[in-house]
Amino acid sequence: MARELAAELLGTALLLAVVVGSGIMGESLAGGNVAVALLANSLATGAALVVLILVFAPISGAHLNPVVTLSAAGRGKLSWSRVVPYVVAQVLGAFVGVLVAHVMFGQPSFTASSHVRGDPGQLVSEAVATFGLVLTILAVKRSRPAAAPYAVALFIVSAYWFTASTSFANPAVTLARAATATFAGIRPVDVPGFVVAQVIGAAGAVALFAWLWAPERAPGADRQHVAGQGGLVDVADEA
Amino acid sequence: MARELAAELLGTALLLAVVVGSGIMGESLAGGNVAVALLANSLATGAALVVLILVFAPISGAHLNPVVTLSAAGRGKLSWSRVVPYVVAQVLGAFVGVLVAHVMFGQPSFTASSHVRGDPGQLVSEAVATFGLVLTILAVKRSRPAAAPYAVALFIVSAYWFTASTSFANPAVTLARAATATFAGIRPVDVPGFVVAQVIGAAGAVALFAWLWAPERAPGADRQHVAGQGGLVDVADEA
Amino acid sequence: MARELAAELLGTALLLAVVVGSGIMGESLAGGNVAVALLANSLATGAALVVLILVFAPISGAHLNPVVTLSAAGRGKLSWSRVVPYVVAQVLGAFVGVLVAHVMFGQPSFTASSHVRGDPGQLVSEAVATFGLVLTILAVKRSRPAAAPYAVALFIVSAYWFTASTSFANPAVTLARAATATFAGIRPVDVPGFVVAQVIGAAGAVALFAWLWAPERAPGADRQHVAGQGGLVDVADEA
Amino acid sequence: MARELAAELLGTALLLAVVVGSGIMGESLAGGNVAVALLANSLATGAALVVLILVFAPISGAHLNPVVTLSAAGRGKLSWSRVVPYVVAQVLGAFVGVLVAHVMFGQPSFTASSHVRGDPGQLVSEAVATFGLVLTILAVKRSRPAAAPYAVALFIVSAYWFTASTSFANPAVTLARAATATFAGIRPVDVPGFVVAQVIGAAGAVALFAWLWAPERAPGADRQHVAGQGGLVDVADEA
Repeated sequence: MARELAAELLGTALLLAVVVGSGIMGESLAGGNVAVALLANSLATGAALVVLILVFAPISGAHLNPVVTLSAAGRGKLSWSRVVPYVVAQVLGAFVGVLVAHVMFGQPSFTASSHVRGDPGQLVSEAVATFGLVLTILAVKRSRPAAAPYAVALFIVSAYWFTASTSFANPAVTLARAATATFAGIRPVDVPGFVVAQVIGAAGAVALFAWLWAPERAPGADRQHVAGQGGLVDVADEA
Repeated sequence: MARELAAELLGTALLLAVVVGSGIMGESLAGGNVAVALLANSLATGAALVVLILVFAPISGAHLNPVVTLSAAGRGKLSWSRVVPYVVAQVLGAFVGVLVAHVMFGQPSFTASSHVRGDPGQLVSEAVATFGLVLTILAVKRSRPAAAPYAVALFIVSAYWFTASTSFANPAVTLARAATATFAGIRPVDVPGFVVAQVIGAAGAVALFAWLWAPERAPGADRQHVAGQGGLVDVADEA
Repeated sequence: MARELAAELLGTALLLAVVVGSGIMGESLAGGNVAVALLANSLATGAALVVLILVFAPISGAHLNPVVTLSAAGRGKLSWSRVVPYVVAQVLGAFVGVLVAHVMFGQPSFTASSHVRGDPGQLVSEAVATFGLVLTILAVKRSRPAAAPYAVALFIVSAYWFTASTSFANPAVTLARAATATFAGIRPVDVPGFVVAQVIGAAGAVALFAWLWAPERAPGADRQHVAGQGGLVDVADEA
Repeated sequence: MARELAAELLGTALLLAVVVGSGIMGESLAGGNVAVALLANSLATGAALVVLILVFAPISGAHLNPVVTLSAAGRGKLSWSRVVPYVVAQVLGAFVGVLVAHVMFGQPSFTASSHVRGDPGQLVSEAVATFGLVLTILAVKRSRPAAAPYAVALFIVSAYWFTASTSFANPAVTLARAATATFAGIRPVDVPGFVVAQVIGAAGAVALFAWLWAPERAPGADRQHVAGQGGLVDVADEA
């Protein structure tokens, strides 16, 4: 259990170091072209997500995201007693990651962001993004678990661009990004709306998945049993 | 059957949300550099296509495209009675996706595009793009089905750039993109020409495939039988 | 045999349509930023290469390149009697591809390029690029054939940038690019030097491979025999 | 052994040719937009890393990096007697690669860089980057070795952007980049600090790995034994 929590903390820390650090680097080099900065930010985040899931999934499942942990518990895949420790580790890790990014780029430890992200379209965006993220995780884990690290990362690269909020889709990430006055920041006052929208999106994905991928239709699960690979709890620990 | 149609509708909706949404985001941030906007648009679309095919192929085959559905029916892989429901779900989903993108970005629900895309080179482009897309699907599904989601996405990323039309290659997508007055739009009057060119390109690919990949030369099919994975109807549901 | 030649012709045609077409599109949209145009050109080419190798390798090996065909013959993997027909199909296909790109973008059928690419550094670049390309094909086909389409494409994406010539690395491509007065062109007078450098680079790769991957050290080959997948002639036809 | 050293030398040479060459090309074409130059530089490096690891891992393990060699020796995976020859081959190869890049781009053979990279944030960055790189190699090699070439490359693409130093993460690379007065250079006086930070980061990763992936928790190793693929010494030699 200590190892699982360490994996969640370290994985979320590295994720935030990437999101915040590449945002700072991209903005500082892009000469005012925000699309170029966001290309760097989104590609760096996607590349890192593949790696973080490959590295930490065999230890803790590489949730790195409270709504993923909640979805797993709600579906009976994770003991409810682990939810709070997991989420605490994720949130703590997220702030550690912001701190690491700030140290690398010579910024103050923590500063409240003034980046306004509050309009209704952005709240809808967070619900859509989190719906898509959780649906991707559930569906690809079932039908093709080896592809899950890539699918999650590619979804996030896409969602940086197709949502009006650049797709936070993660309450721990959202909280910690309120503590950076850089490219990736979000005003603290805008955090609760984002988190509520994320929870709604995740719940929608869990409900849809339960109907659309009803057990009797799960070809992936069958194939796994044939191959003797059933019983895996977590994302992406097979090749 | 309800699940299959729901998968086609939802998958096509998400595809259009990505195409239209990332077009709006890219253009609004790129400071007038259209190539940077199109880089964002094409990479976001390609990333999403991998995910959508991985997610929905086990349910409905993840056609998300009327000419793919028609090709499957023409080759005896899909009952003709399913063609109309599939196409209706795709077209409906495409408009839903445009609507979702517009809500996220604070645009009016639907607006006719004034983006002119009608010259002969663009019609040839649509035929070439759809020919390449359908050939990719047929060939890679036969010889290496696990790679199909990646191949389809990479083809589309490439075709955004090597065709003069940015490669719509999909009648449902074309129809719905007439309803957005943004980066990804197309004038309604230009839609019929695009759709005709797409059908011609798809028919050419089906004909070429029948000759070039004649049954006795299909190593992939043989290998699948050896591995006990024959009998799969759809794209990409193995790892 | 007719099918093999058709595959080489069509595959090389599509490759050139991508190289030339995405060059035209990239340059026309990049507002004078050549690096952005070359990003589009290189990513589109790499994406298409994965697809073309996946699609055509089961038919003809997807050489799409005279020095690859020569290397295969020199190593006893392809009958010498097939070399001339293969190369003719590749060169013919390359010109067809340039024509298709020109039709899509409303250019004259063929125009001699005035793009100077003749300095000594660029000749060294072509030798290095072709050395790397052929070494990649030989090594990855032996040790991990399923990864070959991706390895070839990633090598070319990289070589667009790390060589001073943007890495033609293919005599058929070089010849046909002399016939386009666009971004991807090369002055006809610079073609022979490029081709000689490419042949030298390819020969170096074949020689190095023979020493560095001597038969008794070939773990990939052994593993293939264990898995019952020996006897494959061509690149990348397994998953 | 001669082949192993040749593989390390050639692989590191090609790596440096890519890092330095794509830096020169990116900067010369980007019209002053450093983010665009770094996008080209980072994508070219990542693409090449996949290829170099696929090509050379079956011969030498494709370390291409003294701290990777040291980590392997420290963990008992490589004889200590091979450490010095490996490192000499890597350093020699790195300088050869810089020379090749300079020849291709018409630069003087070697020139000391004046690129200042010495602030504390950049030293922390090198420790973080090398920690992440070595942890990625150790963890993914254990749980999913076939994904290791991709994971290493994606980590480096990300680390170009999320660290303040653009992630050298390799003492041989750092030394050789002091000899190029181009985009990728580093002042010779800044080299020792980078190397010390890299060694600290690598040591941290080895220590963390020993605790977090203790033998009894290694699902990948177990699965490999079941599949009869145990006993492999090096990265990524299975598909």
